[in-house]
Amino acid sequence: MSSKLMNSSRDQKFILKEWLNMNKVFETERFKGGYSVDDLDFIVDNALKGAKEVVAPSCEDSDEIGCKFENGKVITPESSKDAYRFIVENGFAGSNADPDDPSALPMSVLWTLNEYFIAANPSIQTIWLANTGSAGLIRDFGNDELKNTYLPKLYSGEWAGTMDLTEPQAGSDVGDSTTRAIPTDEPGVYLIKGTKQFISGGEQDITENIIHLALARVEGAAKGTKGLSLFVVPKYLPDADGNPGEWNDINCAGIEHKMGHRGAPTCVVNFGEEGTCKGFILGNPPGEDGAGAGMMQMFRMMNEERLMSGHSGCALAASAYHNAVEYANERIQGRQTTNPKAGRCNIIKHEDIKRMLMFQKSHIEAFRAMVISTFWWMDIQHNSSDADLVKKSRIFTEVNTPIVKAYCSDLALQCISEALQIYGGYGFSEEYPVAEIYRDARIYPIWEGTNYIQSLDLVGRKMTMKKGEVFGAWLKDIKDFVNANKDEAGFEKEFAIYTDAMKKYDETLKILMALFATPGMAQQYATRVLHATGKLWAGKLLLEMALIAQKKIDELGKDHFDYAFYAGKVASARFFIKNIIPEIGAFLEVAKNADTTVLEVEEEIFFV
Amino acid sequence: MSSKLMNSSRDQKFILKEWLNMNKVFETERFKGGYSVDDLDFIVDNALKGAKEVVAPSCEDSDEIGCKFENGKVITPESSKDAYRFIVENGFAGSNADPDDPSALPMSVLWTLNEYFIAANPSIQTIWLANTGSAGLIRDFGNDELKNTYLPKLYSGEWAGTMDLTEPQAGSDVGDSTTRAIPTDEPGVYLIKGTKQFISGGEQDITENIIHLALARVEGAAKGTKGLSLFVVPKYLPDADGNPGEWNDINCAGIEHKMGHRGAPTCVVNFGEEGTCKGFILGNPPGEDGAGAGMMQMFRMMNEERLMSGHSGCALAASAYHNAVEYANERIQGRQTTNPKAGRCNIIKHEDIKRMLMFQKSHIEAFRAMVISTFWWMDIQHNSSDADLVKKSRIFTEVNTPIVKAYCSDLALQCISEALQIYGGYGFSEEYPVAEIYRDARIYPIWEGTNYIQSLDLVGRKMTMKKGEVFGAWLKDIKDFVNANKDEAGFEKEFAIYTDAMKKYDETLKILMALFATPGMAQQYATRVLHATGKLWAGKLLLEMALIAQKKIDELGKDHFDYAFYAGKVASARFFIKNIIPEIGAFLEVAKNADTTVLEVEEEIFFV
Repeated sequence: MSSKLMNSSRDQKFILKEWLNMNKVFETERFKGGYSVDDLDFIVDNALKGAKEVVAPSCEDSDEIGCKFENGKVITPESSKDAYRFIVENGFAGSNADPDDPSALPMSVLWTLNEYFIAANPSIQTIWLANTGSAGLIRDFGNDELKNTYLPKLYSGEWAGTMDLTEPQAGSDVGDSTTRAIPTDEPGVYLIKGTKQFISGGEQDITENIIHLALARVEGAAKGTKGLSLFVVPKYLPDADGNPGEWNDINCAGIEHKMGHRGAPTCVVNFGEEGTCKGFILGNPPGEDGAGAGMMQMFRMMNEERLMSGHSGCALAASAYHNAVEYANERIQGRQTTNPKAGRCNIIKHEDIKRMLMFQKSHIEAFRAMVISTFWWMDIQHNSSDADLVKKSRIFTEVNTPIVKAYCSDLALQCISEALQIYGGYGFSEEYPVAEIYRDARIYPIWEGTNYIQSLDLVGRKMTMKKGEVFGAWLKDIKDFVNANKDEAGFEKEFAIYTDAMKKYDETLKILMALFATPGMAQQYATRVLHATGKLWAGKLLLEMALIAQKKIDELGKDHFDYAFYAGKVASARFFIKNIIPEIGAFLEVAKNADTTVLEVEEEIFFV
Repeated sequence: MSSKLMNSSRDQKFILKEWLNMNKVFETERFKGGYSVDDLDFIVDNALKGAKEVVAPSCEDSDEIGCKFENGKVITPESSKDAYRFIVENGFAGSNADPDDPSALPMSVLWTLNEYFIAANPSIQTIWLANTGSAGLIRDFGNDELKNTYLPKLYSGEWAGTMDLTEPQAGSDVGDSTTRAIPTDEPGVYLIKGTKQFISGGEQDITENIIHLALARVEGAAKGTKGLSLFVVPKYLPDADGNPGEWNDINCAGIEHKMGHRGAPTCVVNFGEEGTCKGFILGNPPGEDGAGAGMMQMFRMMNEERLMSGHSGCALAASAYHNAVEYANERIQGRQTTNPKAGRCNIIKHEDIKRMLMFQKSHIEAFRAMVISTFWWMDIQHNSSDADLVKKSRIFTEVNTPIVKAYCSDLALQCISEALQIYGGYGFSEEYPVAEIYRDARIYPIWEGTNYIQSLDLVGRKMTMKKGEVFGAWLKDIKDFVNANKDEAGFEKEFAIYTDAMKKYDETLKILMALFATPGMAQQYATRVLHATGKLWAGKLLLEMALIAQKKIDELGKDHFDYAFYAGKVASARFFIKNIIPEIGAFLEVAKNADTTVLEVEEEIFFV
């Protein structure tokens, strides 16, 4: 493909400066005296510039040359190394996990920028993104020795972190992991033995050392997820000077040949084939009840990775959208319906093209608002001293996370497919970037817990947490917003449609909760509950932003240079509410129909 | 990918033998004394066997080696040539267009088999499929010389045909073609000058000659589509013996580097760079009004190609589905919700996997019924002496065609994405066939007239034809079926849901017809009208087949070996009616909302 990063920065600035209250974050002890809202324009523009000029050019090599696997080693294109170095050295990766770094960015700001770096080259996102999360785990759960040894190198990006959960026989069902950790005489040190699969960056030639954070079961610990512990397992054991020393008996057995993310090494990693692979436990070993802390720890990192996955869908959908806009503006074809005598026109004037662009635009803006606002709540959770706000933050981070992961990554595929369609025959050609984006984005609904796992998390955990109190509070936030604004002049119709959908959503949940008494019903409906909830939330966010935008329009007038942006925000909300929100009503009908086909059919019907 | 054709034959036999009345076709003058219903099992199984054993193995080379372009020549993998030869030599391609071939198959039967050959290797479908259509055009519109020269070689597949419409500046808007045809002293012979793009098989090394059917404008003819004529333009002019002779000044300027169909040469073709390219007009040259017969002729072929595109979606979705079923049956992960103590289970037992499989199964069976029944109507139209039936056939071929093309190809993408999701991380890997299927299938909503073009055809032409009489008759067929069967025991609930949706569909159309008075509204809604119409039709077809299947179940009992198949047919209908049909109600709400955002927004909002 021809790499072409066209992502914009206006909506990002709107979210950070006009919608979210960033002062609540900048005023915390952690960030006080550092950045202010006034710095945000520069920070955003500067990151976008770097992503366009330095990272995006590496995308073509990643896709066309891709990773090679030779003699147990992974070879990545040279340009990937340059792009990685740019990102880590300019403070866009691990350094932000350093509590002492005065230039570290709040998560809400950092992830706003990550949209650009992910879109610029999705293949290398796995290498630099895991640094923040893995450093965070060692920082929060490691002893001083682990912290002193690993954190500086992960913060700086000299070393890269990985997450090692999946095994060939244990994917969605992590509890069936068979990787073992055998205690040694040295406290906290274990011998690791087992095979991990689909490990992003499990082996690479970009950093001088790779720090695996691997789940394994200490001998004698409980079965299932309960008995898992988390280990720091470096590819090379750091020597006395903290440099990569002895090889730690970790082999890469191969990499996947994938339809996208071709520059990302997705590895099978063998730990301890020679019985000498050392792992350093994070936190305490399993107690007498056989319970390890591994899953709890991993989830700390996992939640960030899940938000990342939804955000990656957003990033790639935005990339496809902005490219499609440019193409639609340049491509001449047909005549305008409303003015056919004016001769041939650029296709952006055609109603169906505009419809597809509005579909993408409104969804992408909803995705972005979902992602960045959730990171804002994480910033509050980790840093605020306002106890009420922190309490509230738990509600939003818990409920938002599975929705961001699954709704954004699923709908992003539809957005990208619409972008591709705008190109006509050229969309199928690798000459334009959209074909690669279409291929790359297909991973996000799968990794970091498939979207079905997210749906189960929403329906089975988040909705039932504290007897439904958490989810109730989450929904109440939407209802409070609607009640407070439903008479807003010019938006009466949108709020009427939305209110109707909200009632239908409530009714649907009521019907479903009764149905869920039948075993298997919750599982059968989980995916659709998540999608309906995502739609409801997206509609609220778009309306909320549209009200702010409308006030700006009233203030600035139509001749102001920012008018098109604010008019676009209002249009996104109107389009989404009138065209997408009614789908919630269809789900009510589906719930009423209470279909049990899936539960009743014998598997044999699929084999005929 | 590892090519693995798993498509089944049971549903195909059901459609031909138990649902459609094939005797109506076999009894016509054209087919009398030839095949009978009793031959169908053998014909279907034999084609599937050939597709699996001979054609499918060529798929890996097509995708992995692909086409090369060197020195103006296209090089295809050797295995493509073998697969092509097998298909044409065994009577699955052009020979069926030969009115004198006693072994030619009716279109309904031939296209049933084409599902297998398309799924076996989508890259080569364009080479052999166009033979039937191009031969048909020369047969119907060519003079004796053209017929004698070209038909035997196209029937046998020694030569391949192509369709040449698109030009770099004229895609959806064919009327803007600039390829010229300059009369010579020889009647019917013109000099062709121009560039065609996205020409499937425009150059290849599989057949010894390529017969282009190219649209061009005779000098002085009318502007737009009206002035276009169709020309037979061979790569090599046949010599006195009918063998490829002199080169006809046709150059391939390059091939597309595509995300799928990598073994299919998609070419830029230059006609007459040296001013010596001869084209032979089909039918009469433009008269005094400047009107050529080209578009009318091309549409004859185009309609078949449009059905082919929808059918290709069906073929690939079926291929992905059957592979996913096998994977889900083999992959062990997690425990069954309804029986967790039984230990780990194959994932086909999980409700969400079953839901995804039911989604695919019900859609694929609807697609197949749509496609094959439309070809059945074409068989009637071309061959039946029953005037009433022929009259009816026009209704169904006209209305069905754009729906088959767009609904099947669009929904196939969703089916294939669900199949891919079932594989988890393996779905993203090219180790399994589903990744290639996902890439290959993305072309079908684009080529042969984008799906928006189909939607405009439905809304702007087919629905308004004879003041709505044609579409009214089409809808009445659905209503008659419902009225006749709505009290069928065991299906009362399904018919109640369907009847409700039908009323909502009617109401939606009424609202929309009023809205369409506003310029641009029809264009804005066209795609969604087509999708809603496709859903309505799919539901009817599934119900119709389910009623037949239920009768068989009542007759044969649950222990019969065919029980699983018939139970599956009933399940498909129940699932689709209860879970998909309610979406028609959401579209009614959307119509009521009468959104005008798309018509009102300035293009500037997309550039911010």
